Amino acid sequence: MLSVVILGTGNVAQNLFHAIDESEQVQVVQIVGRNEDVIKKYSNKTKASSSFENIVDADIYIITVSDNAIPEVSRKLSNKGLVVHTSGATPAKSLIQDKKGVFYPLQTFTKDRLLDFSEIPICIEASDSGSLAMLKRLGQSISEKVYEINSEQRKQLHLAAVFANNFSNHLFHISQTLCEKEGLSFELLKPLILETVRKLETLSPLDAQTGPARRKDSKSMQKHLELLTLREHKKLYTLLSDAITKTYEKEL
Amino acid sequence: MLSVVILGTGNVAQNLFHAIDESEQVQVVQIVGRNEDVIKKYSNKTKASSSFENIVDADIYIITVSDNAIPEVSRKLSNKGLVVHTSGATPAKSLIQDKKGVFYPLQTFTKDRLLDFSEIPICIEASDSGSLAMLKRLGQSISEKVYEINSEQRKQLHLAAVFANNFSNHLFHISQTLCEKEGLSFELLKPLILETVRKLETLSPLDAQTGPARRKDSKSMQKHLELLTLREHKKLYTLLSDAITKTYEKEL
Repeated sequence: MLSVVILGTGNVAQNLFHAIDESEQVQVVQIVGRNEDVIKKYSNKTKASSSFENIVDADIYIITVSDNAIPEVSRKLSNKGLVVHTSGATPAKSLIQDKKGVFYPLQTFTKDRLLDFSEIPICIEASDSGSLAMLKRLGQSISEKVYEINSEQRKQLHLAAVFANNFSNHLFHISQTLCEKEGLSFELLKPLILETVRKLETLSPLDAQTGPARRKDSKSMQKHLELLTLREHKKLYTLLSDAITKTYEKEL
Repeated sequence: MLSVVILGTGNVAQNLFHAIDESEQVQVVQIVGRNEDVIKKYSNKTKASSSFENIVDADIYIITVSDNAIPEVSRKLSNKGLVVHTSGATPAKSLIQDKKGVFYPLQTFTKDRLLDFSEIPICIEASDSGSLAMLKRLGQSISEKVYEINSEQRKQLHLAAVFANNFSNHLFHISQTLCEKEGLSFELLKPLILETVRKLETLSPLDAQTGPARRKDSKSMQKHLELLTLREHKKLYTLLSDAITKTYEKEL
C-alpha cells in the first residue's frame, strides 16, 4: 500500500484527502497545515499536524499549498522521498528534491464541495520512471483518467482552463447582473447554461455556436450594445462578437 | 383541448412539436414550413404542409421562423386567432394581429437534440388577459416554469443569454484551440467545464470565481499573456482579467 502525506489544508487538500481516504490502495498517513480548524477535523482520521517540523515518513509527499508557498514547503521536506505539487502553473523544478513531480488534478475545487474524483483528469509528470510509475499508481487509485503531461503542456492546459472556467464564470456573473437590473432572477438562465455545456458531449464548441455574432446579424448586435450601460460590458460584447464573427467568416 | 399550428421547421419548431406532442392538453393540428424534408418527417403525425397558403384553424399559431421573417409570416395569418412568436429579441408588436403575444422558451436549441421541456423557462407576454391565460395553459402543458415577462425584460434576458451561452461557448472554443496547439485533447477540460456550471447550483458566479485575476496574481497573468500567440486572445485575456480584478477589488 502506498503511503502519502498531504501538505496544506485548502480545497485541493481536502478533496484529495477525501478521494484517497476512499481508496483501498493508498493511505494518507499524515495531513500537515497551518489552518488548525481544518487540521482538527482530520485528527480522528489520520495523523494531523499544524507544524511542518514533524513530518512522518511516506512514499509520496503532496504539496497542495498556494503556488508561491511551494518552494518553502519543499525546503521543509529536504530529506524526504518523492515530493510532488498539485499546481497547474508551477514547473516541477520549483521543488528542490531530486525525486520530484507534479500531480495536477485538472478541476476547480470549492470550499465544502467534495467532488467525485473518478472523472477528474490527473496530469502527472515525474523526474524519473520509478517516480512516474508511483504517481500513476496514486492517480489510478482515485481516477480513471491519468495522463502524462509535461511542464510546457501543463502551462498551456492551465491557461486553457482560465478561459474555460474563470472567464466563462465571469460571463455568468455579468449575465446575472444584467438579469437583476431588470428585476429578473438568474434562475431563468440556469437551464440555458447547463445545456450550453451538455451540448459539448456531442458537439465541438465550434459547431455548437449560435447567436447574432455567428449569423453576423449586425442589427441585433447594435440593439444589444444600446441596451448595455457599462462601458466595459460594451467592450467585452464587441470584442467577443468580433472574435465569433471572424471565426465563422468563411462560411457566411 | 387547445389546438396549435406551428409555423417553421427549424430547431425551435421541432423541439416544440415534440414537447406538445407528448402533452395531453394540447394538440398540434398542423406544422407549416418551407423545408420539405422536415415537413415530410411530420406527415404521419399531423397535417404537414410546405405552403403558407393553406393554414387550418387553431386556437394558437406559433411562429418559430427567424426574426426577420416574423412580420411576413404574421401577414400570411392575417385573419387568424391568437398569433405568437418564439423570439427573444423581437417585440410583440412586430405581429400584425390584434390578439398576439410571445412564447419564448429560454433555451438553446440544436439540430437533432430534443430537449426535456419541463425545466425550460417559458417567457410569455400577450396583448390581452384572455390570450395571456391561453399562453399560460400552453406553457404549463409542457413546462413547470412559465413566467410573464414584458418586452423590455425579454430583450434584456436575450442579451444576458448571449453572455451566458454564445460568449461562454466561444471561450470554450478558444480553450479547445489552446489545448490542441499543444497536442492535448479538449476532453481533458470537459469535467472542469461541467463543474464550473454545477457549482452554480449552490454558489452565485460572484462567489464561485477563482483564478489569477480574482487573486490579482499579476505574475501568473503575465506568464499567461506570454503564452498566448494571437493578438485577439491577448486582448480578451486582458479585458476579462481586468473586469474580474475590478469586480473583486474591494475585497483585496
